[in-house]
Amino acid sequence: MSSAKIHTASACTSLGAELHRLIADLYPICRSITGEGLRDTLRLVAKHVLLTVSEVPTGTEVFDWTVPKEWNIRDGYVRNSRGERVIDFQASNLHVVNYSVPVRRKMRLAELKTHLFTLPDRPDWIPYRTSYYKESWGFCLSQRHLDLLPDDEYEVVIDSTLQPGHLTYGECFLPGDLPDEIVLSTHCCHPSMCNDNLSGIAIAAFLAKHLSAHPRRYSYRFLFIPGTIGAITWLALNEEKLSRIRHGLVLTGLGDEGKLHYKRSRQGNAEIDRAAAHVLQHGSYEHHLLDFSPYGYDERQFCSPGINLPVGRFSRSPHGTFPEYHTSADNLDFVRPERLAESFDVCLRTLALLERNGTFLNLSPKCEPQLGRRGLYSMIGGADNAGARESAMLWVLSLSDGSHSLLDIAERSKLTFDTISDAAADLQEKGLLRECLEFAPPMRAESLERTEP
Amino acid sequence: MSSAKIHTASACTSLGAELHRLIADLYPICRSITGEGLRDTLRLVAKHVLLTVSEVPTGTEVFDWTVPKEWNIRDGYVRNSRGERVIDFQASNLHVVNYSVPVRRKMRLAELKTHLFTLPDRPDWIPYRTSYYKESWGFCLSQRHLDLLPDDEYEVVIDSTLQPGHLTYGECFLPGDLPDEIVLSTHCCHPSMCNDNLSGIAIAAFLAKHLSAHPRRYSYRFLFIPGTIGAITWLALNEEKLSRIRHGLVLTGLGDEGKLHYKRSRQGNAEIDRAAAHVLQHGSYEHHLLDFSPYGYDERQFCSPGINLPVGRFSRSPHGTFPEYHTSADNLDFVRPERLAESFDVCLRTLALLERNGTFLNLSPKCEPQLGRRGLYSMIGGADNAGARESAMLWVLSLSDGSHSLLDIAERSKLTFDTISDAAADLQEKGLLRECLEFAPPMRAESLERTEP
Amino acid sequence: MSSAKIHTASACTSLGAELHRLIADLYPICRSITGEGLRDTLRLVAKHVLLTVSEVPTGTEVFDWTVPKEWNIRDGYVRNSRGERVIDFQASNLHVVNYSVPVRRKMRLAELKTHLFTLPDRPDWIPYRTSYYKESWGFCLSQRHLDLLPDDEYEVVIDSTLQPGHLTYGECFLPGDLPDEIVLSTHCCHPSMCNDNLSGIAIAAFLAKHLSAHPRRYSYRFLFIPGTIGAITWLALNEEKLSRIRHGLVLTGLGDEGKLHYKRSRQGNAEIDRAAAHVLQHGSYEHHLLDFSPYGYDERQFCSPGINLPVGRFSRSPHGTFPEYHTSADNLDFVRPERLAESFDVCLRTLALLERNGTFLNLSPKCEPQLGRRGLYSMIGGADNAGARESAMLWVLSLSDGSHSLLDIAERSKLTFDTISDAAADLQEKGLLRECLEFAPPMRAESLERTEP
Repeated sequence: MSSAKIHTASACTSLGAELHRLIADLYPICRSITGEGLRDTLRLVAKHVLLTVSEVPTGTEVFDWTVPKEWNIRDGYVRNSRGERVIDFQASNLHVVNYSVPVRRKMRLAELKTHLFTLPDRPDWIPYRTSYYKESWGFCLSQRHLDLLPDDEYEVVIDSTLQPGHLTYGECFLPGDLPDEIVLSTHCCHPSMCNDNLSGIAIAAFLAKHLSAHPRRYSYRFLFIPGTIGAITWLALNEEKLSRIRHGLVLTGLGDEGKLHYKRSRQGNAEIDRAAAHVLQHGSYEHHLLDFSPYGYDERQFCSPGINLPVGRFSRSPHGTFPEYHTSADNLDFVRPERLAESFDVCLRTLALLERNGTFLNLSPKCEPQLGRRGLYSMIGGADNAGARESAMLWVLSLSDGSHSLLDIAERSKLTFDTISDAAADLQEKGLLRECLEFAPPMRAESLERTEP
Repeated sequence: MSSAKIHTASACTSLGAELHRLIADLYPICRSITGEGLRDTLRLVAKHVLLTVSEVPTGTEVFDWTVPKEWNIRDGYVRNSRGERVIDFQASNLHVVNYSVPVRRKMRLAELKTHLFTLPDRPDWIPYRTSYYKESWGFCLSQRHLDLLPDDEYEVVIDSTLQPGHLTYGECFLPGDLPDEIVLSTHCCHPSMCNDNLSGIAIAAFLAKHLSAHPRRYSYRFLFIPGTIGAITWLALNEEKLSRIRHGLVLTGLGDEGKLHYKRSRQGNAEIDRAAAHVLQHGSYEHHLLDFSPYGYDERQFCSPGINLPVGRFSRSPHGTFPEYHTSADNLDFVRPERLAESFDVCLRTLALLERNGTFLNLSPKCEPQLGRRGLYSMIGGADNAGARESAMLWVLSLSDGSHSLLDIAERSKLTFDTISDAAADLQEKGLLRECLEFAPPMRAESLERTEP
Repeated sequence: MSSAKIHTASACTSLGAELHRLIADLYPICRSITGEGLRDTLRLVAKHVLLTVSEVPTGTEVFDWTVPKEWNIRDGYVRNSRGERVIDFQASNLHVVNYSVPVRRKMRLAELKTHLFTLPDRPDWIPYRTSYYKESWGFCLSQRHLDLLPDDEYEVVIDSTLQPGHLTYGECFLPGDLPDEIVLSTHCCHPSMCNDNLSGIAIAAFLAKHLSAHPRRYSYRFLFIPGTIGAITWLALNEEKLSRIRHGLVLTGLGDEGKLHYKRSRQGNAEIDRAAAHVLQHGSYEHHLLDFSPYGYDERQFCSPGINLPVGRFSRSPHGTFPEYHTSADNLDFVRPERLAESFDVCLRTLALLERNGTFLNLSPKCEPQLGRRGLYSMIGGADNAGARESAMLWVLSLSDGSHSLLDIAERSKLTFDTISDAAADLQEKGLLRECLEFAPPMRAESLERTEP
């Protein structure tokens, strides 16, 4: 057993408030998959964690994709013939279709309408739209807003630039006792929406902060990256690191009122999948387990068949299942401090389980060892009072034949992982158990990574 | 993907009527496991498909069995003392126990009764009985008919022959792009009963006719054979062909009003088993899936442990579960044109699935390929509008790692095979996918079979 | 198929009465894990079966344990100041904590109370307590009894000895056609309690008696041993015999009114586990199947990871689930003759199944063999009258490919093992089947064991 026992925080008001405060700080920024908004976001995150920021030039080939031009925007508006801004980027950065090319033209409402996006079913909300890979422009606004626009000659201005530049991402690496890594990835490309994905960014930042202050068996790598293209870029530029990744989580949509969802990795029964399920099932969380599917967030890339890492996803309400998704209603009210804290707690408990999981050998495997003379067992016999602690010791002894991890034993015994892990620690202390080395020596020998960030 | 995409016919009145017409043409013939009735039946089938007819001499040893003597019958009757025919083969060929040896005797009713078979529970119906492997004779009649026979001296005549001759079977071979075969077998030995098994003969004949007019990836072999001994004879004389058989179906009892039944092969989870289940589950058919059991029709022989081919069975009501089974009530009214057409449709859809099933390789397996620039994916992002087509593409890309067939992917994604197969075709066209060769080169090289029939 | 078909006895009054009589004979003896009470018990058992008794000296190291000192007791009491015995070992041997060291002192009630054990929830019953591995002493009594004791000066006497001696166990070995063994183990260390475990002792003794009078394929080894330390001692001293043990059962708690429980071995799906489940499921027994857990009786030792034998356990109500457990209420009324007989019956049927189970080869595996000409199948065809016997023959032929045992075939066909086994016997008699040798030649060659007891 490693000494690295990460302490889990129970959901607390103060943590929830801190998470919400970081979200509020990040909320006004107009982020995209490239550009200054993304850089500003990483700068704020770097106030909490030690962040290495990488800049990847436009045109870099990353697997089947190419790093796109960098997009920046200063302003954008539609002005009526009286010179009034009737749609204004300064009021909400969702008003401009993300990645719109510069435009400066006059046109009648009829032509303008071909560039407008609304949500007729949710007439008060502004939708979020992007056009990353097709040069185009547009505005998003509420249906009620659109209904009020009379025919007129409008001045349409988008003061953006789309030029060769860089794709930016941030990385926080926390070395542990082992070079084996746990990767946690969160996307940072969405403009002013809180659940998707300031919640993920905030929780990832606070997990990194928490873990940096504790001993760790595993090394941790937190990725703050633009969605899809960022994950693809990171994976393409870091292929030599992938073999060290033992477990991974994508973090997104973690602040709404919905119940917790864990989406399994493509492998379906990886240790991370079982760890997350165990934590959810043995906690008092309302939750739901989802099988892998190839749509969703960056687990798509981590779990693509040529990468196929054991990376699952924690969310609350899955994307597309709540009306506020990808609209202006995903605002600061939509994410709740107590839900953020609970999500943080579940993530941390899952990591703590991975930290403590291991495979052990019963060193006295023929019949039971005499627990009583080691003070591990009640000495007056006859009463049937073996509690969970004694049960757990017997289960650990019974199944520690080198082919069952502590998580395997917890699952089979129906006891909690913590009960099993504590029993293993007691037995190990008494010399009845030793850990099997489950990491291959060449990996341990490699220490290059350890000094990186 | 092969170009051979067999078009499936939806159940239509005209097809049902054609199937019923062939049944009506075949109905009057007195068939048995050998003899002229069997030959007449094959001659009628040969009007629809190119049939190779084989004659196997009496006495030929076929595994544990011996080809029996050939049985033919001209007439059979029981005449009362007034010279009236009170039981008459000319009225129904079910009246004479199939394979009765010749007899020409007088006897009282009491003695005659030891040779009479009735169905007391169904007093209006004539049962169907055989005595293939024990030389014997008898008459079958309705219980009401028997009750009317007074004591008398009766003249009993069966004008049959049971002599060395041949066992006859018909074979329709349709070569495909591959030497790998799908075998479809139907028994042709039952006299005037429609569901068992003129329905199977008619559907097999029309499937062969349909397939002969379309490109085929697989080669097809249709067997029109007497039950049990015919299947054993064919298997014993064609052992060298068995390794080419990839899938098989026994067709029988396909015209009644009952729901569709698919009986799994002994292997239990063969591709044919999963294909049939998928077609039934994703269609609007009332159906039931049956596990393999070693009783039933000729799947008994195809699935015997030393043969063990992946051969399932399509039926409607399973044999023995409906009162008309093996009686004169299994007549032209008992089989329904629309049910025959539906059964045909299910068989054809199952074959079409096998034709299109294959295992593919994602040629861009590291992260997702960029579908948008290939016109395969919606270009305006943000809206959560990925439909089944886009889902299907992502599933195919995700699982096409060489170890999942399209049917595997359809099962895991819960999408229909056709949706998955269409997505695979689109991806293949864009160069993102290529088929794995799943048939071994030596088999492809072998072309002897291709020119056979 | 071996000729050894053990006849199973249906539960009968006379057997139940005999079992109860043996229990009554054993009831008064004060047993412990060592000592004269244990020897007296084995002497009574030896009236029924040929018993080899072993004596293992105190101090012998047995795996992680050491054979303890031998405990014997002549008397024990608490006497009040008027010289009256207020607690008296002669009234019930449960009154003295088992393995109490000698004591002869005077003390006030307050001090005495620290050595008294009661069951406040069951105020009329005396609990059963032990202190095998910590030198201590005490008395057990009912709560009502304790409540009546006034403060007084009491004379406390335990006239016991705890000195170097021996641990005693009994073994009944019944050689069979094969050296492969079935082990049946029952613990003999509990003083005057009937269900736990005079019921197990009585049933083991009568099973041995019954089997000794019948031909046997397997060899049988019955162990009458003190719990835990006895099992550990036997296993430690007999390691070279363990590889011969094919199946095993621990017998305990078999006389109460509760339903039958079978607890699976650690392996979980061993032949013994499936045999016991089949017998319970196809009989008319109320029963429950329990998964393995590492607490319970001596299955703990037999199933420890370094031993890991396929040893299950038959009980009625599991220990600790009924209030009478480990109290004076587990008396002669608590065990019922008819329940004892039923438990015996289930054990014997399970052993009979193991005796008859085997793996066979269909010698005519290509297509069905012609059963009719061998008199195994109805000769007049057409009627759908194949009964369970014919079904069973077809199932045996279908699955006897060398990889399915008769029990496998029974499970898959959903027929009873006896029906399948009878069908296999018929087919073997007709030369259609032969048994695969499933025991390795070196084991068969070894005959040393055969002459042992």
